[in-house]
Amino acid sequence: MFTILPIKGYIDQIDGFYCDGIHAGLKPNGNNDLGFIYTKEACTVAAIFTENRFQAAPLKHFLQYGENFKTNFVLINSKNANALTGRKGIESINTLFSQLDFDLINPVMSSTGVIGNPLPIEKLVAGAKKFDLTAKNGENLSRAIMTTDAYAKTCMYEVKLEDGTSFKIGAVAKGAGMINPNLATMLCFICTDANAPFEDIKEALIANSHTTFNAISVDGDTSTNDTVMVLANGKSNAYDKEAFKEALRLVMHDMAMLMVADGEGAKKVAAFEVINAVSNEQAEIAAKALSNSLLVKTALFGEDPNFGRIASTIGASRIDCDDEKLVISYNDVVVFNKGEICFDAATEAKAADVLKKDKYKIICDIGLGDGKFTAYGCDLGYKYVEINADYRS
Amino acid sequence: MFTILPIKGYIDQIDGFYCDGIHAGLKPNGNNDLGFIYTKEACTVAAIFTENRFQAAPLKHFLQYGENFKTNFVLINSKNANALTGRKGIESINTLFSQLDFDLINPVMSSTGVIGNPLPIEKLVAGAKKFDLTAKNGENLSRAIMTTDAYAKTCMYEVKLEDGTSFKIGAVAKGAGMINPNLATMLCFICTDANAPFEDIKEALIANSHTTFNAISVDGDTSTNDTVMVLANGKSNAYDKEAFKEALRLVMHDMAMLMVADGEGAKKVAAFEVINAVSNEQAEIAAKALSNSLLVKTALFGEDPNFGRIASTIGASRIDCDDEKLVISYNDVVVFNKGEICFDAATEAKAADVLKKDKYKIICDIGLGDGKFTAYGCDLGYKYVEINADYRS
Repeated sequence: MFTILPIKGYIDQIDGFYCDGIHAGLKPNGNNDLGFIYTKEACTVAAIFTENRFQAAPLKHFLQYGENFKTNFVLINSKNANALTGRKGIESINTLFSQLDFDLINPVMSSTGVIGNPLPIEKLVAGAKKFDLTAKNGENLSRAIMTTDAYAKTCMYEVKLEDGTSFKIGAVAKGAGMINPNLATMLCFICTDANAPFEDIKEALIANSHTTFNAISVDGDTSTNDTVMVLANGKSNAYDKEAFKEALRLVMHDMAMLMVADGEGAKKVAAFEVINAVSNEQAEIAAKALSNSLLVKTALFGEDPNFGRIASTIGASRIDCDDEKLVISYNDVVVFNKGEICFDAATEAKAADVLKKDKYKIICDIGLGDGKFTAYGCDLGYKYVEINADYRS
Repeated sequence: MFTILPIKGYIDQIDGFYCDGIHAGLKPNGNNDLGFIYTKEACTVAAIFTENRFQAAPLKHFLQYGENFKTNFVLINSKNANALTGRKGIESINTLFSQLDFDLINPVMSSTGVIGNPLPIEKLVAGAKKFDLTAKNGENLSRAIMTTDAYAKTCMYEVKLEDGTSFKIGAVAKGAGMINPNLATMLCFICTDANAPFEDIKEALIANSHTTFNAISVDGDTSTNDTVMVLANGKSNAYDKEAFKEALRLVMHDMAMLMVADGEGAKKVAAFEVINAVSNEQAEIAAKALSNSLLVKTALFGEDPNFGRIASTIGASRIDCDDEKLVISYNDVVVFNKGEICFDAATEAKAADVLKKDKYKIICDIGLGDGKFTAYGCDLGYKYVEINADYRS
């Protein structure tokens, strides 16, 4: 038995973790654009990265350390992704770290921003030299890693084990834009003082990603830089495999939901619950097709209960389906029932009321088996176009 | 040897084809919403339909006639898709045809519009009873099948064969919205007086669809009603297999290009030429990923030469690629060359000039093989969101 309690604050609440964020001159508006996470004792570190074939330089740099290494320093910048920068991109990270005077063990980097620009090493070195490695300022860090995010993303939990010991686990993340199944432009740094072994961290990270980060979508794209990293310094001496896995799942779920709710210009979060499909795999294909469909997203933006687009998108995903078996509901309002349209004026008004909410479920009962999957998506409106028509400037 | 000459006019230019369009009361604005194609002698007919698993009622009705049948009447309506209407949807088509007094041979129907509403049989019957089957008014027909189209889509060719005979071939189509690889909300009716056998028509139709209709995208969705239908009445007594196939390809290419240029709110057409991929299949995957990417589409709308998004999208499509081999150009302006960013101010200005054009190529040389495919896509801006946020009203 264990209990997991949400607590206030940022990752700086965790024993042995130090962090801060500053303005190093990358963002023209003077906002924070460079941050760090530092631990006195090096941490066990595990990460999952983008499935994009053009992995950004910081990812390749991380992977050069091999599996199961320890690090005491993560440097994170926004405004420049250091992606599509070839071998020079990796060299620039080594050059950068070589110019810092801190006592660094296997330092790693994480970047987000515009693809295809050389890393501005001088600005980053000058900025990093101002770091105070004893700072505990998670809020500054969270703002340093934001790009088009509307708000900082963080959560913290304390986990109490049966033997009376306890550990903390929390995260700081950036999302917005390009959030897609299979990890897209998102950086998430999960810190814990649990005494967790590398193998358990990696296993839990992969297992939990399927229903959390890989179940959300903003626009169906996948970036070059996506990273979910877990840093465990072991300082609590507390650990329980099941408790850790569940606490990590909660943190990943919270961060994923904050990301989808903050999709570029998004105002609504829809849970697309596909149930009774032929298999879980088919349910996942249909649920992700719904959360990625432009026609569905614009209908959500218009608060239009256009269930025809829901059905059409399921059909377009080419899973096994039959309109004589299909049932579609907005929360508990059934609008299509096994070949029968249930869309009188009263039902349409009820369905439209559901779509006026900030969060709701769209339940698609395929009626052919017991496969299920829930994907999370947001609406897409003018603001998305405005943000993305000229992101670089 | 044969020659193919573009000629003016609509499909009514073809011997033995009659057509017209009227307002039957489906569109609230009084525009045409019901049309027909009629031939005195029944036509050989071949069609390809949507890959959406929820095929609309008119498609199922057509397929009930089996392969290789003849028809002399195609009834086409807009504003109601007769999709997701179950068995009743098919019955409503039979009821409709049974109430018409024309001398009909295997009449078929084609519908486009809102999904999930019952077909308004009375309005359609009352409208069809006004038809003059000796009318030759292709323009009226083309307007009857438009939904969010900005303009009517048509083309006509005359094909002169070596033996001195000739035939005509032309099309009327609707596109806009949901145009996607694998046929999406589009109706295209190709008429010819070539004396073409069913097997040749079907073979040429399938062969040509790969590089024409299946190579275009507006928003990545696939509708329940998409149809490309070829009607051949044989009246010219002229036929040559190669000439017919090439003329059909030209017609299909023209119609596909008109559709993508008229994507909802679109102002630009980009040809995404992926070359030197490991295989044609991989080139097609990457080219279609580019033409479907929201981030790419919004960058085109912003006239922003954000080649990082191009590269990232190729990587996200997970084809074999390597940034040390990749070359990206906007027309002849190389912006990324085998790991080297070529993006000084002068190059960026030149690339931005290309994006100001209405049509341009984005060439992605993968550098790993000789596979190639060209997909066509359009930009996506505020207008798309406006049109789709509340399409039904």
